[in-house]
Amino acid sequence: MLKTNCGRFFEDYCIGQVLDHAVPRTVSGGERTLYHALYPVRHALYSSDEFARACGLPSAPLDNLAAFHLVFGKTVPDVSLNAVANLGYAAGRWQAPVYVGDTLRSQSEIIGLKQNSSGKTGVVYVHTKGMNQHNQTVLDYVRWAMVRKRNLEAAAPQTVIPTLDTALLPKQLSVPQGLDFSRYDFAQAGEPHRWGDYQIGERIDHIDDVTMEDAEHMMATRLWQNTAKVHFDATARPDGKRLIYGGHVISMARGLSFNGLANAQMIVGLNAGAHANPCFSGDTVRAWSEVLDKAEIAAPGVGALRLRLVATKGCAPFELRGQDGKYHADTLLDLDYWVLIST
Amino acid sequence: MLKTNCGRFFEDYCIGQVLDHAVPRTVSGGERTLYHALYPVRHALYSSDEFARACGLPSAPLDNLAAFHLVFGKTVPDVSLNAVANLGYAAGRWQAPVYVGDTLRSQSEIIGLKQNSSGKTGVVYVHTKGMNQHNQTVLDYVRWAMVRKRNLEAAAPQTVIPTLDTALLPKQLSVPQGLDFSRYDFAQAGEPHRWGDYQIGERIDHIDDVTMEDAEHMMATRLWQNTAKVHFDATARPDGKRLIYGGHVISMARGLSFNGLANAQMIVGLNAGAHANPCFSGDTVRAWSEVLDKAEIAAPGVGALRLRLVATKGCAPFELRGQDGKYHADTLLDLDYWVLIST
Amino acid sequence: MLKTNCGRFFEDYCIGQVLDHAVPRTVSGGERTLYHALYPVRHALYSSDEFARACGLPSAPLDNLAAFHLVFGKTVPDVSLNAVANLGYAAGRWQAPVYVGDTLRSQSEIIGLKQNSSGKTGVVYVHTKGMNQHNQTVLDYVRWAMVRKRNLEAAAPQTVIPTLDTALLPKQLSVPQGLDFSRYDFAQAGEPHRWGDYQIGERIDHIDDVTMEDAEHMMATRLWQNTAKVHFDATARPDGKRLIYGGHVISMARGLSFNGLANAQMIVGLNAGAHANPCFSGDTVRAWSEVLDKAEIAAPGVGALRLRLVATKGCAPFELRGQDGKYHADTLLDLDYWVLIST
Repeated sequence: MLKTNCGRFFEDYCIGQVLDHAVPRTVSGGERTLYHALYPVRHALYSSDEFARACGLPSAPLDNLAAFHLVFGKTVPDVSLNAVANLGYAAGRWQAPVYVGDTLRSQSEIIGLKQNSSGKTGVVYVHTKGMNQHNQTVLDYVRWAMVRKRNLEAAAPQTVIPTLDTALLPKQLSVPQGLDFSRYDFAQAGEPHRWGDYQIGERIDHIDDVTMEDAEHMMATRLWQNTAKVHFDATARPDGKRLIYGGHVISMARGLSFNGLANAQMIVGLNAGAHANPCFSGDTVRAWSEVLDKAEIAAPGVGALRLRLVATKGCAPFELRGQDGKYHADTLLDLDYWVLIST
Repeated sequence: MLKTNCGRFFEDYCIGQVLDHAVPRTVSGGERTLYHALYPVRHALYSSDEFARACGLPSAPLDNLAAFHLVFGKTVPDVSLNAVANLGYAAGRWQAPVYVGDTLRSQSEIIGLKQNSSGKTGVVYVHTKGMNQHNQTVLDYVRWAMVRKRNLEAAAPQTVIPTLDTALLPKQLSVPQGLDFSRYDFAQAGEPHRWGDYQIGERIDHIDDVTMEDAEHMMATRLWQNTAKVHFDATARPDGKRLIYGGHVISMARGLSFNGLANAQMIVGLNAGAHANPCFSGDTVRAWSEVLDKAEIAAPGVGALRLRLVATKGCAPFELRGQDGKYHADTLLDLDYWVLIST
Repeated sequence: MLKTNCGRFFEDYCIGQVLDHAVPRTVSGGERTLYHALYPVRHALYSSDEFARACGLPSAPLDNLAAFHLVFGKTVPDVSLNAVANLGYAAGRWQAPVYVGDTLRSQSEIIGLKQNSSGKTGVVYVHTKGMNQHNQTVLDYVRWAMVRKRNLEAAAPQTVIPTLDTALLPKQLSVPQGLDFSRYDFAQAGEPHRWGDYQIGERIDHIDDVTMEDAEHMMATRLWQNTAKVHFDATARPDGKRLIYGGHVISMARGLSFNGLANAQMIVGLNAGAHANPCFSGDTVRAWSEVLDKAEIAAPGVGALRLRLVATKGCAPFELRGQDGKYHADTLLDLDYWVLIST
């Protein structure tokens, strides 16, 4: 029996299939430290136990994007080793904070399949859950990826495309138990701008930039035990470049967005996301945001913003798509998420 | 209202102004680990809980330069985003060790202002304090930087230049409560040289070298949430280089100085410091030290050395300045500090 | 008295000499995090406290190769600063797991000396032990290195070559107290292959590759406080390259070997090891394994495999040596070890 795992191909999936992803992981203080070294993240709730306690939490949780990467990374050997492209995300909900000492594992269900007309690839839709040691779901999301067929002769499965809403409704968002921003310290958080200061349609240029490095994105990607060869092996692509894991771009852009959104503390919903173009070492990444929607939240002092976060590698801010309606060649990421902010 | 912070300019400061810097930070074991991965530091007191306990401390503290960077980093968005140069340090005192679980924040007071004759820039002097969750000052220092004016027409402030002593007096140094080197283990510390073995005027070539890397200095700088663009953005300078944060050079040189000063455990005073020339990825850094002074300390088995620590990128050891009295073009750092050592 | 340590030379060693290596080190959760960021390691026993507890251990230990590097690193200033080559390892036994909070130190005894016929170098054999704060040996091993003479006129010592067995016998392996694989979760561990599925002589191509980076190997090497100049200083070699610490290649290859050997959880014996060729930044490393032997182990559900782990930088898998019997020029590592696996 062949011992190594070359990953599943399109014809290996069927609707309703449940995959228990391997390698549970216990989070230590080190994950927080390294996350702060890899990204320019400074949200006070994730940086300071004291600040988190003043907001009603027991201590500073693991950054919610770090939790996402941790859960996502485990799915890679089962879902996307043979992916040509990661096409999108939807319906992501952070349901419970992750704390030092928690042990996470991941599980995915196949909820959609559609063979492409070329007959060489197909789209696989998975609903992934991350769970802690108490079997509590800490986050779940849907993603879909284009996956190669191993055997081009394999019959196409019946097409099933899941119904996915454009965005989560505010009532679908989970607010961490006890979260209370009524004594929120704006000075320590870094900016005075509160929920009421943001207007729908407002756009923010985050002005800071960062040039990408192979050593950094590889360490980030390994940290989440994501094993996709193309991120680590300079011989995997004809151009000799190592493709940067899309989640690295997400976290970098989110870090850059602190400048202008310092109080947008907790991501609680992922409405949609697209990796518009590949990113490589040497690219200089910057970010801008657009306020898409606002919502009131039941927790004291807490409101929600629906934001578009765009990462680019050179184009002017606020240029997302060209006149042809396609993403600008310098657009890297188009992410649509809900975040909790002090009112 | 513009949401992003472009930093303060020279005309935004006034004498007596107090800035509460944002983003408190809780220290975990991860900070120590990453500090050991980034720098060749091996001082036993910071590496081993057992060694620290044998010296009267509850556990190994965070390296005192890491504590300095952590406090310093928070000041950058308020003090030096628009700095042309970081000109100097003085009167730095480490007043209490920082332990895992401590949460630090920073505060600065503007204590000096002097517009330059060009009218385009001015020098800002700040007195910065780092405080823990008990509101205890863990360290304080003075630094001054040359900061751009936004509006060249803005009136020059009245010139105030603080009186700064050349060096701290031994009696101004804080010794951590309980510190006791009377049962100090020289074998485990790594060298036999004790306080009495060092002579004023003695110079030590630390012989080891390290070649700098962009990924390393960016991770180090982000770890302390220092956001100055020039360290991260290869498009910020005409030469396409990312300027290495001066504190990275300080920690690298201090790490190299272990070889010859292994028992110089705790930095307790920063008398002066100058970043003589910029440092970039690819530079190979080495270090030498000079014993400037010695002092007796009340704690058992503890003495103090006043040291000059010089980092260079190529020149022969012990060449600090050229015949013109200016720093040699290869001199990177000239640091003057007090350190506690076993007698 | 010269303060800096240039390292010992061949003539500085004598049989029976015991070296207490400096700088004890306390392990935190950060070491585990950083190890996971530097290497593609995913063995569940080292990743998850819950998985480790289900296997009878109190929590996830520090990866046993990380423990090895930590103990090894301390020996470098005393043993191999002036080494021309690290020639081999033998008789390595992991005797107790290392947990967060443990403080390790190292001690070596000189057990063999042989001057080379050139008269310029000699081979030094050391038996090194790593001990925790309870004075318990956590691992020990023999290694030998070729070390330069400082004074070519120094008399050659009497030749003593220790008797070293080709491999440890299964009965010589230490099994951690309480280890119990009888309720082992193969799904969470990542692969279904158990002890009985591996055949002596079977070879496994681990298929994944990773391209090496200077920033990564320097951080890894510093983390273990290994100070050998050649790893950090681009001016140390005529070709301007920084030699990658052999242990970095070992850990990278072990990480890659997860794919095909996910259940080979705990390394307990190091029979032999050779760094066949140097490795540098830019090299793309891959790995293959061969099952050399199998043994039954007294602990419930636990078996042992003796494996050869080979790292290469380009040659086809399973090509270890050329027709001349010498290692292929692309072979980097040939490691022979015993590992515990679920039956």
